[in-house]
Amino acid sequence: MSERRRQGVTIRAVAERAGVSAMTVSNVINRAGRASPATVAAVHAAVAELGYVPNVVARRLARARATTVGLLYSGTRAPFLDAILVGALRATNARGLQLLLHEEAPGTRDAAEAAVRSLARGGADALLLVPPFAELLHDSPILQELALPVAAIAIGHVMPGIATVRIDNRAAMAELTTLMIARNYRRIALIAGNPRHSDSAPRVQGYHDALAAHDIAADPALMIAGRFDRSSGEEAAHALLTGPVRPDAIMCSNDDMAAGVIAEAHRHGLVLPRDLAVTGFDDTTLAARIWPPLTTVRQPAEEMAFRAAERLIGTGDSGEAPTDMIVPHAIIERESTPLR
Amino acid sequence: MSERRRQGVTIRAVAERAGVSAMTVSNVINRAGRASPATVAAVHAAVAELGYVPNVVARRLARARATTVGLLYSGTRAPFLDAILVGALRATNARGLQLLLHEEAPGTRDAAEAAVRSLARGGADALLLVPPFAELLHDSPILQELALPVAAIAIGHVMPGIATVRIDNRAAMAELTTLMIARNYRRIALIAGNPRHSDSAPRVQGYHDALAAHDIAADPALMIAGRFDRSSGEEAAHALLTGPVRPDAIMCSNDDMAAGVIAEAHRHGLVLPRDLAVTGFDDTTLAARIWPPLTTVRQPAEEMAFRAAERLIGTGDSGEAPTDMIVPHAIIERESTPLR
Repeated sequence: MSERRRQGVTIRAVAERAGVSAMTVSNVINRAGRASPATVAAVHAAVAELGYVPNVVARRLARARATTVGLLYSGTRAPFLDAILVGALRATNARGLQLLLHEEAPGTRDAAEAAVRSLARGGADALLLVPPFAELLHDSPILQELALPVAAIAIGHVMPGIATVRIDNRAAMAELTTLMIARNYRRIALIAGNPRHSDSAPRVQGYHDALAAHDIAADPALMIAGRFDRSSGEEAAHALLTGPVRPDAIMCSNDDMAAGVIAEAHRHGLVLPRDLAVTGFDDTTLAARIWPPLTTVRQPAEEMAFRAAERLIGTGDSGEAPTDMIVPHAIIERESTPLR
Repeated sequence: MSERRRQGVTIRAVAERAGVSAMTVSNVINRAGRASPATVAAVHAAVAELGYVPNVVARRLARARATTVGLLYSGTRAPFLDAILVGALRATNARGLQLLLHEEAPGTRDAAEAAVRSLARGGADALLLVPPFAELLHDSPILQELALPVAAIAIGHVMPGIATVRIDNRAAMAELTTLMIARNYRRIALIAGNPRHSDSAPRVQGYHDALAAHDIAADPALMIAGRFDRSSGEEAAHALLTGPVRPDAIMCSNDDMAAGVIAEAHRHGLVLPRDLAVTGFDDTTLAARIWPPLTTVRQPAEEMAFRAAERLIGTGDSGEAPTDMIVPHAIIERESTPLR
């Protein structure tokens, strides 16, 4: 029996008293799903009777601080993983706590929920989410049901009940786009990130912000969808390099897709960076090692993971609600974007 | 006071009884250094009197199994780090144990010893070493003094008193060189690794083995020293591409140096892989993402770290001496080495 269950009224107890499932209780509390008026009344009565507090923060306050942080990640953003693990371990090491890993392919919400249950069974009493798991889970009843404090890093916007640590993706991409304009690139293409990751849209917005601020019309032929992996960068570059408008620069929503663009540009016989400028996003270990070295946005992944883990293991006695922390990014200029 | 100190006679107690330093005790026991005959006699008397057992394995058996694995690593081989952390965490997670990190620049033995002391103070009672720390520490008295079980991964040879998990570096490089010969490369250059890493020499030997087996004379002009980092790959490539014998292939002792060769080749106006073949070693995340994708040797870093951590946390009751485990490597063929 975990600490958490001994100390407070659980959603399971409410469900039992009301004669419904825990998911129904969560749905009623969150005004989701389609419960009958009778069920809604029964749940509210059980909540009142038992003194159930359906607020993650209040429940977090009622129990001991986390002793094991569960990290749910996907192997597909591997170049980022080293920094995330080091940051999370720095925070947990400092308090003698354990970091419990679970790798899961980025698939359905069901699979993500099963992964969370597995971490909880393994002893995790706090959850650190890496994209796209915050996106998949932020409105899942499992977070209410298990009453785990949750923090997410590298996401695009605030999510209710989840502590977030992120950069200002929109401002960062606007700055990088402005740099490209200042270097005299005019047919600047953008490969968007995976639409299931919440940091994809703000990066597209930042690109449009900068073009608009410089009175450059956004050309739909230069906007291509991507999935954050190298092969989607290759596909997008192929489409752009054989399309109606030949770009002089291709901005990518992460470094892996930039690596795909570089590969495809070489296959098309281009000499880089002379014939085509390329930018990345994240500043993973790849960015400085590839040719040409990538101009990119540095996202302080280690720091973000450290801060997020700190919040999970330190908020138990602070009384603060989950907050949104914006950490500084940096524009890193390398040889992939010479003055034109 | 740690468990370890309460349970057995320490080298410090022996040193105090003999009126010498712990290092002198260690030197006498290991027949190192230059102690006087009187000192040697005093140490042996103290050892006998206190019942000191200077054998790491025996002392390991005398106490509980490790509860915290300390991982000492250097940030300079970052592309490998994700796999090492995941592997070590898989093993420690499975037993509910903690993994304690310490990053240290690869410098002097003094600095490495200070790092080990810091890990031990932090609660580590077993030590997992990543290159070059096994090389720096394997004959350090601190391992005797602290009586920590030690495992090392990705090293070049057996080291007394240390459990080792490694690939057969010599055979792997011989196979990769044989592949290059089969693809009709004849002026095959080699950039050696950092001479302070024990896996550097076997890779050079493997290259020579394969050349000799195919009656190809090794050309000293094609053998260049490196340091395992990208910039040493750039420097070596510059020397080779402006030297007396123009190579048709450059084999690198790791992937990072191959990235440096690729960058320098582009600066010299070469078109890859047409004008120059390049190979790496390790199969880091970089290898499949760079252009051209690297033919390389896959070193199963996650598996090695997992096995090494397993040995550290599982050997306490097995009674086995530290052993040497050779794990399988694989030759990964990619576009950087087309048939010539």
